[in-house]
Amino acid sequence: MKVGVFVGRFQPFHNGHLSAVRYALTKVDYLYIVVGSSQRSHERDNPFTAGERIAMIKEALEEDNIRASRWMIIPVPDADSHSVWVATLKSSVPKFDVVFSNDSLTIRVFKEEGIKVLPIPYTNRKEYSATNVRTRILERKNWESLVPTAVARLVEQLDGVGRVRSMIERDVTR
Amino acid sequence: MKVGVFVGRFQPFHNGHLSAVRYALTKVDYLYIVVGSSQRSHERDNPFTAGERIAMIKEALEEDNIRASRWMIIPVPDADSHSVWVATLKSSVPKFDVVFSNDSLTIRVFKEEGIKVLPIPYTNRKEYSATNVRTRILERKNWESLVPTAVARLVEQLDGVGRVRSMIERDVTR
Amino acid sequence: MKVGVFVGRFQPFHNGHLSAVRYALTKVDYLYIVVGSSQRSHERDNPFTAGERIAMIKEALEEDNIRASRWMIIPVPDADSHSVWVATLKSSVPKFDVVFSNDSLTIRVFKEEGIKVLPIPYTNRKEYSATNVRTRILERKNWESLVPTAVARLVEQLDGVGRVRSMIERDVTR
Amino acid sequence: MKVGVFVGRFQPFHNGHLSAVRYALTKVDYLYIVVGSSQRSHERDNPFTAGERIAMIKEALEEDNIRASRWMIIPVPDADSHSVWVATLKSSVPKFDVVFSNDSLTIRVFKEEGIKVLPIPYTNRKEYSATNVRTRILERKNWESLVPTAVARLVEQLDGVGRVRSMIERDVTR
Amino acid sequence: MKVGVFVGRFQPFHNGHLSAVRYALTKVDYLYIVVGSSQRSHERDNPFTAGERIAMIKEALEEDNIRASRWMIIPVPDADSHSVWVATLKSSVPKFDVVFSNDSLTIRVFKEEGIKVLPIPYTNRKEYSATNVRTRILERKNWESLVPTAVARLVEQLDGVGRVRSMIERDVTR
Amino acid sequence: MKVGVFVGRFQPFHNGHLSAVRYALTKVDYLYIVVGSSQRSHERDNPFTAGERIAMIKEALEEDNIRASRWMIIPVPDADSHSVWVATLKSSVPKFDVVFSNDSLTIRVFKEEGIKVLPIPYTNRKEYSATNVRTRILERKNWESLVPTAVARLVEQLDGVGRVRSMIERDVTR
Repeated sequence: MKVGVFVGRFQPFHNGHLSAVRYALTKVDYLYIVVGSSQRSHERDNPFTAGERIAMIKEALEEDNIRASRWMIIPVPDADSHSVWVATLKSSVPKFDVVFSNDSLTIRVFKEEGIKVLPIPYTNRKEYSATNVRTRILERKNWESLVPTAVARLVEQLDGVGRVRSMIERDVTR
Repeated sequence: MKVGVFVGRFQPFHNGHLSAVRYALTKVDYLYIVVGSSQRSHERDNPFTAGERIAMIKEALEEDNIRASRWMIIPVPDADSHSVWVATLKSSVPKFDVVFSNDSLTIRVFKEEGIKVLPIPYTNRKEYSATNVRTRILERKNWESLVPTAVARLVEQLDGVGRVRSMIERDVTR
Repeated sequence: MKVGVFVGRFQPFHNGHLSAVRYALTKVDYLYIVVGSSQRSHERDNPFTAGERIAMIKEALEEDNIRASRWMIIPVPDADSHSVWVATLKSSVPKFDVVFSNDSLTIRVFKEEGIKVLPIPYTNRKEYSATNVRTRILERKNWESLVPTAVARLVEQLDGVGRVRSMIERDVTR
Repeated sequence: MKVGVFVGRFQPFHNGHLSAVRYALTKVDYLYIVVGSSQRSHERDNPFTAGERIAMIKEALEEDNIRASRWMIIPVPDADSHSVWVATLKSSVPKFDVVFSNDSLTIRVFKEEGIKVLPIPYTNRKEYSATNVRTRILERKNWESLVPTAVARLVEQLDGVGRVRSMIERDVTR
Repeated sequence: MKVGVFVGRFQPFHNGHLSAVRYALTKVDYLYIVVGSSQRSHERDNPFTAGERIAMIKEALEEDNIRASRWMIIPVPDADSHSVWVATLKSSVPKFDVVFSNDSLTIRVFKEEGIKVLPIPYTNRKEYSATNVRTRILERKNWESLVPTAVARLVEQLDGVGRVRSMIERDVTR
Repeated sequence: MKVGVFVGRFQPFHNGHLSAVRYALTKVDYLYIVVGSSQRSHERDNPFTAGERIAMIKEALEEDNIRASRWMIIPVPDADSHSVWVATLKSSVPKFDVVFSNDSLTIRVFKEEGIKVLPIPYTNRKEYSATNVRTRILERKNWESLVPTAVARLVEQLDGVGRVRSMIERDVTR
């Protein structure tokens, strides 16, 4: 059985992430989806807790009928340095064969440890970026179409829009 | 949908844990199995990494034909104090309704935060304890019968017996 | 007895903070003044240690004849995330009924934990901000009139002006 | 003005601590009462949170009519090492002249940093020890007479007896 | 014997650092070269691990025929605050008499602890700065002439150029 | 050039350690002596700071005329887990070929990461153990003959005997 790892912060999980998961599952039998910077939340670039991000991913995959027996979601906190972070990840995730990533630093730190990395053929990269989703939320532009319906619903329930805005307004008023 | 949390260290995951999971799934629709003290490994009382423990639980539940759509495994590290730990757990796990535990301290810290806790009708508590499994490994007694077949196989693959023993011998020779 | 909490970083404690304390004491019988980011010092935005900030607040309140039996100052360090930070604060401070804050993020994280938050009718917000005080110190403009006399005296004793400047000059020369 | 520091863990604050505070206040004008290991709670030797311990000390001193203008309570967490801990304490507490302690290690680490330490003439040391209070709670013996009335009332309110016991029973059943 | 400390991050070790070491060795008999922010690596401003930086310094000093019996390299991680950092450094390094530094903040924190600080007569400060070296690497300009030959060779072996670039490209594409 | 690593806590550095260094230097050209648990001090089992331990090793090797161009001493703090600790060590030390150790756990964690480990032919293991040295110090028995003269002199200068005893007496009196 071939096992893969897909690392992201998923702030929030968007359609680009979803298509990356679908792509990875054409290459491996089982996929560990690692929620990075898991300890962060309520920050401008990290509005959601690990628990909230896990809920988003879980519901999006269920909604998309991706079988639960083919993936698991594992939160991994930041480490002091990126070189130690690979060791932290390896001790937090069962054995795997390959990492999926397009991020130049992630690719490098895994390769420096001798781990195979595969690129993901992202489509429409600029649209489907978490930064873009957060910016649109702030600018009160349409963002719901960039994320799975389940994620839009959860962000709504969590008053995610209010949360993201409260963190920006903060910088102005403190 | 009713959601539960079952907390343990699972060093290693044994038959008592497995029957607790089965029991909890008769009370809730979905169960988050929290691997506590996730950052610890290679210690006398914490021989296995979070990744190894996740693999044990995953394979044991698969082997037992418990549907993957009904559970998820989430590692949670220790916090500075037990009162802050409940907040760490809540930020690491999606929303839940109830915690399953027989441990007096776990019950107390969750209750102090107003979270409902249900007991687990453990059978044969003394046999099926992780401490007992680790002790038997050290004393070269039969321990395989106390854990799911998948766990015994993984402990074998990891040379878990050698690892547990190397940590005991250490105390003698340093 | 009604108990309140007033959270700030107090870098340094200025007249706006002092009037907020006076206001809060018209609403509650006892006030815990929480010195946030207590572990930070000698940074551009956090020049003073917790001990120095506690001294500033203590001497300013004494100077203003606010009875010592109505307030206490408690340092609280940052936590990994803002959601865990509320738990850290709750375990560091005796029981309280209400939090005073105008900061959108502080308001949000307390409300998410079900804690009552009251706004403070700040007067002359732009003048009386710690950022403004630090900027004026750097630009060698009058800043003493923005802080209680006791704070100006302590900043003087600590060579606070030299300290703030040493951290700016640093960025240029490294 | 002469300023002193009195360090303890206060798990819980007992009559010996109270008489030490009274003694120290005959030697100095102002006393900072440092709640050490402030981040710990819900442990066998550290049952109470910093907030709970602060409440105990505050109410005991009020009950004993010790003027609030002569003391302040400051929580200080543990540091990686005892030598760094003195620096942490110094950055958490306003300037002070002398430390009161009978503990050989505390005396040593302060003296190694050139800080003056004075002994406290403890009376009835064996009775009035926090270890003794916790042991009596566990053994269901009279402990209330060893602590100020305010502390006994607070321990009651917090179900401190149940909490201490839950942590002992834990060791037996896990 | 007079003992000195020279603190830097050495990202990377360049000719200015080397001449500072030579200068310091005219003032003291023995020099501890402290690699600060030792826990950081794989970041835009901190590309190299402590181990890699130690290798650079060691090989540069050997190449320059500076006798190994006159210096030692000691990595020291960041502390929560700069005031506690001095204590961390003092507990990590054998006894010393003087610190060499031109950095305004470093000078200040050591002086606040009563430690003597001497300036270094830097020549050609703008050229010989680690920031300049990293910028030139990014802009594909000549940088090798700014560092000792041994450092240029090590950066080559580590694909340091690729590493620095991968961290910049990252900011664009995430 | 063949490079080795020798890991210990060196609390304190004794004759057994010294003969291990001499042995290792017959097998490798250069030796990194790693001072483990570097952040600990002033504890019963870890009385000395990293700086004090570095001084002991440095002076003992100098006294024994082991050329400074063949070794370096590097402090490495503990990590959350032993599996992550190997990554921390690898990022703190320049490239190496082999680790020298007789400790079963150290051997295991390095081998699990694919690193070669060689045993050290210890002579008179029971005598020459740091535990034995600390115990003798406590029991006021001869300990100076178990350590290099330079170490005995440094322990004397630091009042190491008083320090070790102060930590034991502590347990009795608190």
